[in-house]
Amino acid sequence: MFYHTKKLQYFKPPEKPDPIYAKKIQELIGGTFGEMTVMMQYLFQGWNCRGPAKYRDMLLDIGTEEIGHIEMLATTIAHLLDKAPIKLQEDGAKDPVVGAVMGGSNPRDIITDVMAAAMNPQHAIVSGLGAMPADSVGFPWNGRFIVASGNLMADFRSNLHAESQGRLQAVRLYEMTNDPGVKDTLSFMIARDTMHQNQWLAAIEDLKAEGLEDTPVPSAFPLELEKREFAYQFWNHSEGTESAEGRWAKGPSMDGKGEFEYVKHPQPLGPEPTPPAQPEPRLYGTPQFRQTQDQGQQKASDRKIIG
Amino acid sequence: MFYHTKKLQYFKPPEKPDPIYAKKIQELIGGTFGEMTVMMQYLFQGWNCRGPAKYRDMLLDIGTEEIGHIEMLATTIAHLLDKAPIKLQEDGAKDPVVGAVMGGSNPRDIITDVMAAAMNPQHAIVSGLGAMPADSVGFPWNGRFIVASGNLMADFRSNLHAESQGRLQAVRLYEMTNDPGVKDTLSFMIARDTMHQNQWLAAIEDLKAEGLEDTPVPSAFPLELEKREFAYQFWNHSEGTESAEGRWAKGPSMDGKGEFEYVKHPQPLGPEPTPPAQPEPRLYGTPQFRQTQDQGQQKASDRKIIG
Amino acid sequence: MFYHTKKLQYFKPPEKPDPIYAKKIQELIGGTFGEMTVMMQYLFQGWNCRGPAKYRDMLLDIGTEEIGHIEMLATTIAHLLDKAPIKLQEDGAKDPVVGAVMGGSNPRDIITDVMAAAMNPQHAIVSGLGAMPADSVGFPWNGRFIVASGNLMADFRSNLHAESQGRLQAVRLYEMTNDPGVKDTLSFMIARDTMHQNQWLAAIEDLKAEGLEDTPVPSAFPLELEKREFAYQFWNHSEGTESAEGRWAKGPSMDGKGEFEYVKHPQPLGPEPTPPAQPEPRLYGTPQFRQTQDQGQQKASDRKIIG
Amino acid sequence: MFYHTKKLQYFKPPEKPDPIYAKKIQELIGGTFGEMTVMMQYLFQGWNCRGPAKYRDMLLDIGTEEIGHIEMLATTIAHLLDKAPIKLQEDGAKDPVVGAVMGGSNPRDIITDVMAAAMNPQHAIVSGLGAMPADSVGFPWNGRFIVASGNLMADFRSNLHAESQGRLQAVRLYEMTNDPGVKDTLSFMIARDTMHQNQWLAAIEDLKAEGLEDTPVPSAFPLELEKREFAYQFWNHSEGTESAEGRWAKGPSMDGKGEFEYVKHPQPLGPEPTPPAQPEPRLYGTPQFRQTQDQGQQKASDRKIIG
Amino acid sequence: MFYHTKKLQYFKPPEKPDPIYAKKIQELIGGTFGEMTVMMQYLFQGWNCRGPAKYRDMLLDIGTEEIGHIEMLATTIAHLLDKAPIKLQEDGAKDPVVGAVMGGSNPRDIITDVMAAAMNPQHAIVSGLGAMPADSVGFPWNGRFIVASGNLMADFRSNLHAESQGRLQAVRLYEMTNDPGVKDTLSFMIARDTMHQNQWLAAIEDLKAEGLEDTPVPSAFPLELEKREFAYQFWNHSEGTESAEGRWAKGPSMDGKGEFEYVKHPQPLGPEPTPPAQPEPRLYGTPQFRQTQDQGQQKASDRKIIG
Amino acid sequence: MFYHTKKLQYFKPPEKPDPIYAKKIQELIGGTFGEMTVMMQYLFQGWNCRGPAKYRDMLLDIGTEEIGHIEMLATTIAHLLDKAPIKLQEDGAKDPVVGAVMGGSNPRDIITDVMAAAMNPQHAIVSGLGAMPADSVGFPWNGRFIVASGNLMADFRSNLHAESQGRLQAVRLYEMTNDPGVKDTLSFMIARDTMHQNQWLAAIEDLKAEGLEDTPVPSAFPLELEKREFAYQFWNHSEGTESAEGRWAKGPSMDGKGEFEYVKHPQPLGPEPTPPAQPEPRLYGTPQFRQTQDQGQQKASDRKIIG
Repeated sequence: MFYHTKKLQYFKPPEKPDPIYAKKIQELIGGTFGEMTVMMQYLFQGWNCRGPAKYRDMLLDIGTEEIGHIEMLATTIAHLLDKAPIKLQEDGAKDPVVGAVMGGSNPRDIITDVMAAAMNPQHAIVSGLGAMPADSVGFPWNGRFIVASGNLMADFRSNLHAESQGRLQAVRLYEMTNDPGVKDTLSFMIARDTMHQNQWLAAIEDLKAEGLEDTPVPSAFPLELEKREFAYQFWNHSEGTESAEGRWAKGPSMDGKGEFEYVKHPQPLGPEPTPPAQPEPRLYGTPQFRQTQDQGQQKASDRKIIG
Repeated sequence: MFYHTKKLQYFKPPEKPDPIYAKKIQELIGGTFGEMTVMMQYLFQGWNCRGPAKYRDMLLDIGTEEIGHIEMLATTIAHLLDKAPIKLQEDGAKDPVVGAVMGGSNPRDIITDVMAAAMNPQHAIVSGLGAMPADSVGFPWNGRFIVASGNLMADFRSNLHAESQGRLQAVRLYEMTNDPGVKDTLSFMIARDTMHQNQWLAAIEDLKAEGLEDTPVPSAFPLELEKREFAYQFWNHSEGTESAEGRWAKGPSMDGKGEFEYVKHPQPLGPEPTPPAQPEPRLYGTPQFRQTQDQGQQKASDRKIIG
Repeated sequence: MFYHTKKLQYFKPPEKPDPIYAKKIQELIGGTFGEMTVMMQYLFQGWNCRGPAKYRDMLLDIGTEEIGHIEMLATTIAHLLDKAPIKLQEDGAKDPVVGAVMGGSNPRDIITDVMAAAMNPQHAIVSGLGAMPADSVGFPWNGRFIVASGNLMADFRSNLHAESQGRLQAVRLYEMTNDPGVKDTLSFMIARDTMHQNQWLAAIEDLKAEGLEDTPVPSAFPLELEKREFAYQFWNHSEGTESAEGRWAKGPSMDGKGEFEYVKHPQPLGPEPTPPAQPEPRLYGTPQFRQTQDQGQQKASDRKIIG
Repeated sequence: MFYHTKKLQYFKPPEKPDPIYAKKIQELIGGTFGEMTVMMQYLFQGWNCRGPAKYRDMLLDIGTEEIGHIEMLATTIAHLLDKAPIKLQEDGAKDPVVGAVMGGSNPRDIITDVMAAAMNPQHAIVSGLGAMPADSVGFPWNGRFIVASGNLMADFRSNLHAESQGRLQAVRLYEMTNDPGVKDTLSFMIARDTMHQNQWLAAIEDLKAEGLEDTPVPSAFPLELEKREFAYQFWNHSEGTESAEGRWAKGPSMDGKGEFEYVKHPQPLGPEPTPPAQPEPRLYGTPQFRQTQDQGQQKASDRKIIG
Repeated sequence: MFYHTKKLQYFKPPEKPDPIYAKKIQELIGGTFGEMTVMMQYLFQGWNCRGPAKYRDMLLDIGTEEIGHIEMLATTIAHLLDKAPIKLQEDGAKDPVVGAVMGGSNPRDIITDVMAAAMNPQHAIVSGLGAMPADSVGFPWNGRFIVASGNLMADFRSNLHAESQGRLQAVRLYEMTNDPGVKDTLSFMIARDTMHQNQWLAAIEDLKAEGLEDTPVPSAFPLELEKREFAYQFWNHSEGTESAEGRWAKGPSMDGKGEFEYVKHPQPLGPEPTPPAQPEPRLYGTPQFRQTQDQGQQKASDRKIIG
Repeated sequence: MFYHTKKLQYFKPPEKPDPIYAKKIQELIGGTFGEMTVMMQYLFQGWNCRGPAKYRDMLLDIGTEEIGHIEMLATTIAHLLDKAPIKLQEDGAKDPVVGAVMGGSNPRDIITDVMAAAMNPQHAIVSGLGAMPADSVGFPWNGRFIVASGNLMADFRSNLHAESQGRLQAVRLYEMTNDPGVKDTLSFMIARDTMHQNQWLAAIEDLKAEGLEDTPVPSAFPLELEKREFAYQFWNHSEGTESAEGRWAKGPSMDGKGEFEYVKHPQPLGPEPTPPAQPEPRLYGTPQFRQTQDQGQQKASDRKIIG
């Protein structure tokens, strides 16, 4: 069960409205790597967790923190949308084509019109100048953005990846504004992302130290059941061998169980596929050969009902 | 530019058809972590890559390999769907309700009917017993499943996560069949997933060794621009302290730049949010106070057109 | 900011596993009217609320409660999925076609096979027997399921509708199981839905009593700006007049501002549309008339670049 | 079966083209609460209706009317897109970066370029200056936007909510243009929305008067099967008690069957959840305890195939 | 504007309920090539049509017919879902695992349970045994399924393709049932699909005869603006030359303007791509070379704010 | 299996960056008719093909070519996004509202700001100035865009339609830029589209010549099983008879098996639908008649558990 406190985890209000930036920062709420993703991912991982209690507790702690991050961003967006121009200017709109849309004759009017033209229209029409559960192009957040697999190592790697993409996007948005209030709020969130990258790296170490999981994930699957001879080969699928120069092409493998090998001219190991000679006739696929003279038209009277 | 060879990278045909398993193994083609995801993710990362040539070449090599993995799975599915029962049995269908659907009176008929009832109906209606670009519940693959951010460390972590979830799912599907042909093909793919987990761990090391990126991602962002005092704190958002027992709660941080701290009773640092006193009247949101006596009905004649 | 307590708001464990019912009850988590919808809808409405504080507080209270409802259902689903049959039986599988899929020769085996065939495959492959943010056919929850418009009357009506569909679905699922534990948990949730229907009806009254909103929504829009002569007409778009028998066809309108009128033979008030004579040539739409003799092929040399 | 008359239900042509506004008004065609939603919602409710004939007839009448509303809006959009600038200006484009995109040196050219930059690109590329079944950010209409549940009270509440959000959006769009033609057409549609809000309120009364349904929906479900002690409690999930001030916190409940109660300090009623001790081993989830010394690697030879 | 008549265009009721077939035949309502697609596609093409009146009228005629086809199928589905088993049987459910789900001990019970397990759960939970705007796996219809491009030849080819896939699916569903009522209704719809395939072939001829469009579409684009030397070459992207045996590999091209040519060993015509030397620093992509010694950490004090 | 060569099939770099055009040309990668669609469509058709080898080989050849087309466009987009303005200008931003967003006081600054405001924000935030698998409004490509039905005639018609819409869109984008490099690359792709339209027309002829398929598709379905009397009728669903003037309204049908007939005043052939008298009580739909005095509330004690 959850409780709410009215105060925000952290917050500095934007100094000025900016509807274009409001559109952009929606990415951090409802984008693939936004706060809705980490919140839902950590909560579902916690709820589904069957491993030791410390992991379950930790997952629910951080998932609960992330709900508050959405709250901070939603508040930021409400401020950024305040006084947004919901309509293009009408003065000076003389030209039949242009004037209908844009009539501003001085730079300020033009600029206000640009804002009205390029802001997310749903911020006016649908949400009445409030945040939405969508990304920076208005695409809605959806449940396929998260994973909770029951295997904590696989999931902690997912979490590390989400926090890496998330901090990258937050930093980019930090660079895309000059507003001191927005920058201050983001600098808190970026610091939390630093913690969370560290946290998942630590959690990965912790799982290893507990002997619960290792590379390759899942490590409990008997290695002799996979085709070991192909488990450390890099296949060079193009001409040229620049890809031979990396760590992945030679030396001991990272799991300590093999040696990397560079396959310069890989050849297929399998045969040409041979589909069934004739497809199921009642599905009317194209057969390999013309079946009869009157294949173009079966006769209903000839059909044996075969269920 | 790309070339195709008619032979498959690897393949053993299934020994017997199995339309239910065909439905399930679609997850490895079109699911969130299926082969379409890794193929498209690596190709887009390669095409967008501005880093050293070895990374670009490596990304396009592995992306090209993954196209062939879809091909292997599509061929497997075509075999599994062969002879699928497209219709429920009619004999013995006597009961008005039941008989319409299921009329089999011996186990084999019942079982054939179960297959006809529970298989993916689109495998018959839409694809004519062929594979589809969708997952095991028929949801289509989509472009939001992949990321190519331009930051290789963030992306290699994404790739490691995708290969971890992918191998986990392949192993689960290995356990969910007894067919030796399917198991053999999967044992090749699982081995490649072992390689690919190792590959991305190696690529992460390689990026570090080149001095191109480190934790936290992106590492070129000046750390003094984030609120450093919150960059290594774990906030305990629930009663109880099981979460204090993990590596993430004490000791040096994983990036070597701080010390983990456990905040047992976290308090909000921000204020209660204060929305604008009155919303934009032309958007008809609910104001904080009743505005006038006749607020329930503005008069058009009173309205100043303000553009 | 939010806090979590480890105890559930309410919970009785299912007496027995049931993977088919686990698939079905996903509708209450991630369906159009599931708990994710009401949670997100109330939280976003609260965060975006500019009206009096009591509404904002109330919205965030109930939104916070709903997070806990997802938690209860996720826990229920984990129990229902315990010991789920992840594979079809192999004994007795003799027939080349049937045996590959279904080999059970006694009722229990057949039934276990039905469960393995008809359960949501992602419950095994993707979530490792845990709940998912998706509905009963595996379609993911998405942000277009919710609305937070800034107009509280419009939104409270949305909330009333969501709780009505939600209680209807919960009641249907109550009828679709015999498990006393599941029924007990649902009987708590159904009671909360009763409260929430009452709550939104009360909130609608409250808004009216405060003079903040009325029918038609939004009530601040001057009525003389709409075409009043069509504001209370029912148009009978079909032959027959059964639709004349309802309350909507005669008597005073519900907003007290007009009289219902039944238009038995409605006629169009507008003209036949007249599209522009010729479409933009650079977009190569089909023109109304063949333009020139050599319209089938413009000459590049004749083209004036017109920007 | 349906018939079409070539005349529009109502229509005034826009006075001037405006591609930016064309993008915005798409919300009324393909948005969550656009005309495609009400059309499909009413038609499916009508086709699925098993209640008295007057409801079925009424639903199909209004559903049929709404098809014509899409037609009116599609015609409006075609006019608004006429002469849309499909390309940025080239004259004066001297600067290597800027000039490539924007070369206008006088206000009119700049403004035309803004239109070309900010209009929905699919209006040029995909639809050739015609309307599309999508919303104002180009997201396509989809079937999850509608509901037809078979319970008319639940559905009429859905319809009331759709018409409330729909009229709110139409009014906002009315305020977002100065074009007299567009405003005139919208003033007809807004009036119809007034009727439709009244209509669903009347239909709700009608259902009650017929004794077919009441609060809580569905009212035929025996109340003693829900946990009545929680059916009228408001749970205060946050510090502070502003939420105690509303109608929902005290007094008789709206269904006349209980008394509202304000729970100031709600406590969980359920236990901490206890997941199964060890997860299904063949799904390779993380167990609660390290299982054996060589847990990191099962041996294939030890595995009992258990189906 | 549209009118409705209460009678169906054509209809024979199913003889018996069949919830599994109800799930399958949803494909013809809400699938990619279902009736919702052709209805919406033809209506939007008609509303957007700027060509001669006969095309616009014809498009709206057939679009109006297709609304009635959805109606026929929705009615069929309501009949098929009648008396659907909404719950698994409880008698004989003794075994702790199995009994919870399936307790039937005689074939009829088992079969009823299979229906309850494998039907679309939303047909019970969401629609109350009515049709839905979704396909046979429950995926919702969406607006990206249709096209209305403004170029009638491109669109008539789209229509021909939709009617070809549509008839193919209708025929497959005809083969997947034994119910005489369903087969009779489908035999009407299949005949209409025959007409519609003929209709679009005729419309294509008509457009050619009017001189409005030809191959390649769009034919008004000056051919000398395309690289004509590659306009009739077949590139053989694989080893082996089976693809040389078709009509597309030799002889005059179908548009009468060229000669097919088979390129047996195609070679790339372009260069290796060369990305920009260094990416935009404020987006923190990976550069081609390590930039400075302290690249791993910029200093904030060194940063020039460059906007 | 597939191979990659580092050289592009064809390519001329854009002369200048243009982030607005980069947004638009995404349509050709990830739009409904973009290169991802044709690539995936041809590959899946090839992998699922059970017809003669020449078709399978041809499909995989062209599918392989299309992968390279994505590569060309991705490279083009990376060039177009180079030096994109990721932030609005700050100088001259004096006004509290406007200045926050747009401060440019000379045309070039304004224009740069327009680019920053109207470009696809995800091109900066998500992809770091690289291409994405999405269309021109940022909607992701998905698997429902393609079809591989197993019937080659149906699929070749789909392919012809895809290449027609695709060439139309490429030509429109050709007209929407002045950049010689982009135009040159597009002129290659447009020529390939010319080939591919010819190719599918030839393939359709080839199938006919082989006697494998004809109109109506699928031609192996016995015509006497469809209601032949309706197979060549055009139904005029509107007043007026402009639609009688086309080729589809008179003369021999295109399949040579009938004669077109124009039905001027079509009448319904079916009855009014009659839903079941009373819906399933446990799903709580609205019945046709009020059932009992206390219908508003069943008594739990009266309920017979009927499973």
